[in-house]
Amino acid sequence: MNKPQIILIKPQLAENIGMTARAMMNCGLDDLRLVTPKESHLSDKAISASSGADEILKNATVYNSTREAIADLEHVYATTARRRDMIKNIFTPEAFVKEISDNTGILFGPERTGLENDDIALADAIIEIPLNPKHTSLNLSQAVLIIGYEWYKSQTSQPDKQLVTNKTKVASKEQLLSFLDMLEKKMDSQGRKISPEKRPRMIRNLHNIFNRAELTEQEINTLLGMFNLTKD
Amino acid sequence: MNKPQIILIKPQLAENIGMTARAMMNCGLDDLRLVTPKESHLSDKAISASSGADEILKNATVYNSTREAIADLEHVYATTARRRDMIKNIFTPEAFVKEISDNTGILFGPERTGLENDDIALADAIIEIPLNPKHTSLNLSQAVLIIGYEWYKSQTSQPDKQLVTNKTKVASKEQLLSFLDMLEKKMDSQGRKISPEKRPRMIRNLHNIFNRAELTEQEINTLLGMFNLTKD
Repeated sequence: MNKPQIILIKPQLAENIGMTARAMMNCGLDDLRLVTPKESHLSDKAISASSGADEILKNATVYNSTREAIADLEHVYATTARRRDMIKNIFTPEAFVKEISDNTGILFGPERTGLENDDIALADAIIEIPLNPKHTSLNLSQAVLIIGYEWYKSQTSQPDKQLVTNKTKVASKEQLLSFLDMLEKKMDSQGRKISPEKRPRMIRNLHNIFNRAELTEQEINTLLGMFNLTKD
Repeated sequence: MNKPQIILIKPQLAENIGMTARAMMNCGLDDLRLVTPKESHLSDKAISASSGADEILKNATVYNSTREAIADLEHVYATTARRRDMIKNIFTPEAFVKEISDNTGILFGPERTGLENDDIALADAIIEIPLNPKHTSLNLSQAVLIIGYEWYKSQTSQPDKQLVTNKTKVASKEQLLSFLDMLEKKMDSQGRKISPEKRPRMIRNLHNIFNRAELTEQEINTLLGMFNLTKD
């Protein structure tokens, strides 16, 4: 778990420090460093904006310069929204989280101006969040959130798609076909007459609809009850 | 460009509507729908929080119910932070953006409570953002931002890593080796004596350092000047 250090350089607003702590907690990050913040990270505004992530604020460390804040780190990345006249590797957040190793810090600049060139020069490489080039200005905490989100994703594995069935489970094909048989009988006894030529196609449509729906056992029972369907 | 519609159900704070518009603009999304917002999306607070995305606010449409807001859509996804007692497919944001097709809307619930179960039941499937299970509560605009960010990523291709060299370019190997030859000569004339056994290893180290740095032509010229290096 190579958790990166989040380093805010000269943040201007206590609220943004608090929201950054909240975003960090959302992503399972703990370590916040602050370089000469303009407002206190322990102010009421910061604590309130952190929405319960006040532990991160209380454990945050304040430094007098970027150099001091990165002294013990082995790898430093700078986040910027605009390209500078500097020769530097630029990573996407997704590529960065694959590169990350021990003792890594990420620099985030002040709200209005972003990082100064001298701070960027202290970093090994740049992380650039892919965004609409006409509107790249992100709130500070949102930049932290996106990089934290990519980090969290890289540490966990959630299936791309999962059917949550809670206490029931997906019906077996026998259960589904038995339900469809009952539905077919109901149709024959109560619905309009279907010509023998059209019948196979209609039955296939019915099968397709309910196969797509991936019915659970509970849902089949609900449908049986609602439409008063029985085997006989 | 299958841009999803962003649909905020009963948002409570004008500021969050504005920040949502900002996040949408960051991600190149345009279409905002609002179901019975508590505060106006055209209020000063909303416009100010949108940080320049006021076009999105001005073009937003207000509806009286979720049903009206989704009437013309073909696909609807609901975002939730907590699992409900409902049988539903759950997608990650990354998987969702691969699934997305025309006429798709995404529902976001009110700030404190999230979506009501009746609204979730109107959706085809759920999008769940993978986050620290101990702290899944995201600000409304941040949930929009993460899903918008994944959508934007899916529409663009940025190289994982790129060396930005601006007006210069990476030096050819001949330029690099010629620079290293000069450095070696300088070392011989000014540095301490190196035993012949140690020499090959030191030279290899020097090569490795400067190969890792991927020097550009401009940087080689800068180094030549700074250390007064010449061919002879």
